[in-house]
Amino acid sequence: MEELLADDDRCLGGFAETVTTAMAEYGYERVDALGDPVQWAAMGRDGAVPAAPTSVLVPSGFQRLGRALAGRSFERVGRVETYAGYAQRTQVPFEDEEQLLADAPEGVAGIYMTVSGSTAAEYGLGVEPVDGGVSRLGVFETETMTDEITSLKGFYDRYADEFASWRSVIDTVESTAREFGFREVNTPAVERTELYRVKSGEELLDQTYSFEDRGDREVTLTPEQTPTRARMVQSRRQALSTPIKWFDTSKRWRYEQVQKGRDREFFQTDIDIFGVESVAADAEIVACAARIYEKLGVRDRVDFLLNDRRLLEAMLRAEGVDNTTQVMQVVDDKEKLTRPEFHEALANVGVDGETAERVDELTSIAGPIGETVEELAERAPDDEATREAVERIETLADRLAAYGVADVCRLDLSIVRGLAYYTGLVFEAFDSEGELRALFGGGRYDDLVGLFGDREVPAVGFAFGYSPTRELLQREGKLPPETVTTDVYVAPVSESVAPEAVDIAGDLREAGLTVETDLTGRGLGDQLSYADGIAASRTLIVGERDLANDEVTVRDMATGDERQVALSTLTESVVDELA
Amino acid sequence: MEELLADDDRCLGGFAETVTTAMAEYGYERVDALGDPVQWAAMGRDGAVPAAPTSVLVPSGFQRLGRALAGRSFERVGRVETYAGYAQRTQVPFEDEEQLLADAPEGVAGIYMTVSGSTAAEYGLGVEPVDGGVSRLGVFETETMTDEITSLKGFYDRYADEFASWRSVIDTVESTAREFGFREVNTPAVERTELYRVKSGEELLDQTYSFEDRGDREVTLTPEQTPTRARMVQSRRQALSTPIKWFDTSKRWRYEQVQKGRDREFFQTDIDIFGVESVAADAEIVACAARIYEKLGVRDRVDFLLNDRRLLEAMLRAEGVDNTTQVMQVVDDKEKLTRPEFHEALANVGVDGETAERVDELTSIAGPIGETVEELAERAPDDEATREAVERIETLADRLAAYGVADVCRLDLSIVRGLAYYTGLVFEAFDSEGELRALFGGGRYDDLVGLFGDREVPAVGFAFGYSPTRELLQREGKLPPETVTTDVYVAPVSESVAPEAVDIAGDLREAGLTVETDLTGRGLGDQLSYADGIAASRTLIVGERDLANDEVTVRDMATGDERQVALSTLTESVVDELA
Repeated sequence: MEELLADDDRCLGGFAETVTTAMAEYGYERVDALGDPVQWAAMGRDGAVPAAPTSVLVPSGFQRLGRALAGRSFERVGRVETYAGYAQRTQVPFEDEEQLLADAPEGVAGIYMTVSGSTAAEYGLGVEPVDGGVSRLGVFETETMTDEITSLKGFYDRYADEFASWRSVIDTVESTAREFGFREVNTPAVERTELYRVKSGEELLDQTYSFEDRGDREVTLTPEQTPTRARMVQSRRQALSTPIKWFDTSKRWRYEQVQKGRDREFFQTDIDIFGVESVAADAEIVACAARIYEKLGVRDRVDFLLNDRRLLEAMLRAEGVDNTTQVMQVVDDKEKLTRPEFHEALANVGVDGETAERVDELTSIAGPIGETVEELAERAPDDEATREAVERIETLADRLAAYGVADVCRLDLSIVRGLAYYTGLVFEAFDSEGELRALFGGGRYDDLVGLFGDREVPAVGFAFGYSPTRELLQREGKLPPETVTTDVYVAPVSESVAPEAVDIAGDLREAGLTVETDLTGRGLGDQLSYADGIAASRTLIVGERDLANDEVTVRDMATGDERQVALSTLTESVVDELA
Repeated sequence: MEELLADDDRCLGGFAETVTTAMAEYGYERVDALGDPVQWAAMGRDGAVPAAPTSVLVPSGFQRLGRALAGRSFERVGRVETYAGYAQRTQVPFEDEEQLLADAPEGVAGIYMTVSGSTAAEYGLGVEPVDGGVSRLGVFETETMTDEITSLKGFYDRYADEFASWRSVIDTVESTAREFGFREVNTPAVERTELYRVKSGEELLDQTYSFEDRGDREVTLTPEQTPTRARMVQSRRQALSTPIKWFDTSKRWRYEQVQKGRDREFFQTDIDIFGVESVAADAEIVACAARIYEKLGVRDRVDFLLNDRRLLEAMLRAEGVDNTTQVMQVVDDKEKLTRPEFHEALANVGVDGETAERVDELTSIAGPIGETVEELAERAPDDEATREAVERIETLADRLAAYGVADVCRLDLSIVRGLAYYTGLVFEAFDSEGELRALFGGGRYDDLVGLFGDREVPAVGFAFGYSPTRELLQREGKLPPETVTTDVYVAPVSESVAPEAVDIAGDLREAGLTVETDLTGRGLGDQLSYADGIAASRTLIVGERDLANDEVTVRDMATGDERQVALSTLTESVVDELA
């Protein structure tokens, strides 16, 4: 049935050029950013793809690109229309593109795009993968619904089923923050662009949504929340008592190339402690992060790699390294380099071979925090800066033990976390299987808030992003289900008892339950299947005969068991059953 | 102490011009948009304002404007510095601007802006109103924090205390929606601009944040969620079973003149039912809205005014009016017009005097929905369209009674809600005292979703805005307190017992409590005052002696009572006490 058009098959100039040109001409996003190969298929009746079809069928929602590709895929093209349009015009039923084409007269061809099943799944494109790991172009409908208006690439419509799962993870993160006494704040989604120049310079600003508003102000959609928080802390520096412990979950926007796990709009929960320099605050931040994974059910699947930049810096100095900033930059890349590459990079910043050896050794120190701190204390040079830094790590290790999270914490002297603005503790959370990229990271940034006002304010915190953690949860079978849930559906058997159903539903809602009742006037069978669709735990069947006895029928939707319950005890009984 | 500079006093060109010029020169927002008079005060020791001060003190956060105004307020100006900077330089304590100035040597002057207390309150500017209903310029700090970077006008930094109150109201709205089986969705904050052209035309687009992104797409920050929802419904029209019941709370953005209750960034909760044409769905929407106010504790302070456009249209037709659209536009304005103006407006759209009289009478029908429906049924003309419309209202009234909300619903035939896109039910919620503007409104819009795709999908819903409801709650003393709350603060009396305090805090958190412990190493007195500041219900005092007896001291922060509790039963005991 299918004839895949490989790179140089049929398409003038080859597949890649064809797609790229069509994309450019018609304003579509570049599909090769999807990563995996994307292929076009032309198809015809009985596998015979005509060179000059009388009609080319394309999926609705992709007409323009379909037309462009048809023009390049066939020697000559007749009418181009959608599968649905063709079905309507020829008065045949339309359920399946392949079937439609199989039943079509000679000379009709179809065209669609296929992507690998895994790509489709990653990007939420595929809802119905078909044989051979491909899914139809039709599944792109969520992205390209009408010919004219689609959601933006890297932005997502999250429907109720999917968002139920997101909400559950967000709730876990937020409830953990609340337990630790972090307080919710709420900040603008749009800021003056200059706010981001203070900290980030122009580089980050190349990746923002920045524009002039109608009052000619340069403004930017918040790409991160730290500058806003710094402004807020400065603004109320007299009134706020320390520690200032804040959290907030909201969206951030960055104009970046869309990739797996990197969207243009994404949720982030920022959790910070301002105004306290102590190791106790460092430990609380790490403990809060660890507790999130405990509550998500994957505590033993996550490692926290910790380091203190002051420790690394002191030890580098003790090794005779003066240009510690440059050397730490090299260390930051160590993970990505081979041993010879690492040594060459060190040589490039003026570190001699012997010292490079010791730097390599030093930054290879890694292990469970308790033991590794002891090891470190023994081999650390006896200068004051190192001693202080080691003591700080010792205190941190003790405190993490008190929080009961030391077992998931590893000290790793190669962790630097860029050079942006961290001044002490740095940490990153990793999948302990090592399959996924870093889940998120954080650290201490004592100098940053001072850039936004008159006062120096120490700070430690992290920004929790959701995508990698959701991947981890999925792999571990711990992702909250992508489905809505309902306590009770109240089903009136006829319109005449609908008011009673409404009344009963109201009582159950007052008890705090999630309750739906019929809004359509449809029959009991349809109502039961709707109740099933919303995953109702119980359905109450409200019939005239039962009501005459002051009763209703309570159906357990999981087992199908039914029993009569008196109206007078109904709410209590259902609440108890569901508790 | 103060010498207010009235319009033409001292300031060259008068106060208004001075401020306006300074504002323009220095890029500040126009203060006259605040509405109420804004005044400058210069002050000096013993009320003597020097003509040529050696130093002019200005509030921090307003240095540039302060400098500009100083230059215009005095004949000659020496050093301009902040109150805080002056205090630091001269090594005097700084608690109060007036006191600072009173203690200053001759030749030092201070300057600040005053606004009326009510203006300050309205715009959230004032935190400490002082004598005579004025509050200091210092309170502008939240808007003008540093000399350089301020938050945008109409956008707000919501600190933890204030947002606790917001969160409580949002939670009430969302939990009500959940009880009714509305499901949370999540949608992009940025859409292609053309999405808004479908429904709203260019007029709304003049008031949006619209721009070209880095990929040259015309995009807009969502000014409302309905077009996005319409797109989503169309996109999954095959897969979604009806009724589709969605809610979502998120921000909207509109570039409008900032006024009381009209911000450029604001929260909105959209609650809709798609795919069902029934009166039952209409009633559920109104019931959900009414239940929100019940849970907010102001059920008896809100009236819902309902109408059905089909009813009004049918009755206008029965009166011989053919251009019902035009006439309904006039009816929409009726509330704002005097009787002669209303009749004139009707005459302008071709309604003769006698008919105008009947239209006036018709659109004066208003009252409790149950009685008014009966009255209406009696006097309604006996044509089919009217009969159907009246029956629909009768069914609605019955259904609202079943929901237990009929008593807060009034039928009011003058309610039209613009002419944008409503097709049936329209309603608005009002403060029953009649002091505030409409709290919010909603209705049925069966034709709108069809504009965004292939399928007609009936819909009914409302968008709940927060500002007017928060005003109502404030007036009624029902606004959730603007303060954070804490279950337990755990206070170690010394660093040596800090790990035990951390451990105890962890156990309490596992029980779901909000718990803080010391992160600063400060003394018990300071800890207790911090615990007081975060409104902790209990403080657990962890001392070495108590610990030796396996006990801690539990202090009730409200009464000051203290008792010893065994560590073994501590969590249970505290959880029980706080339950």
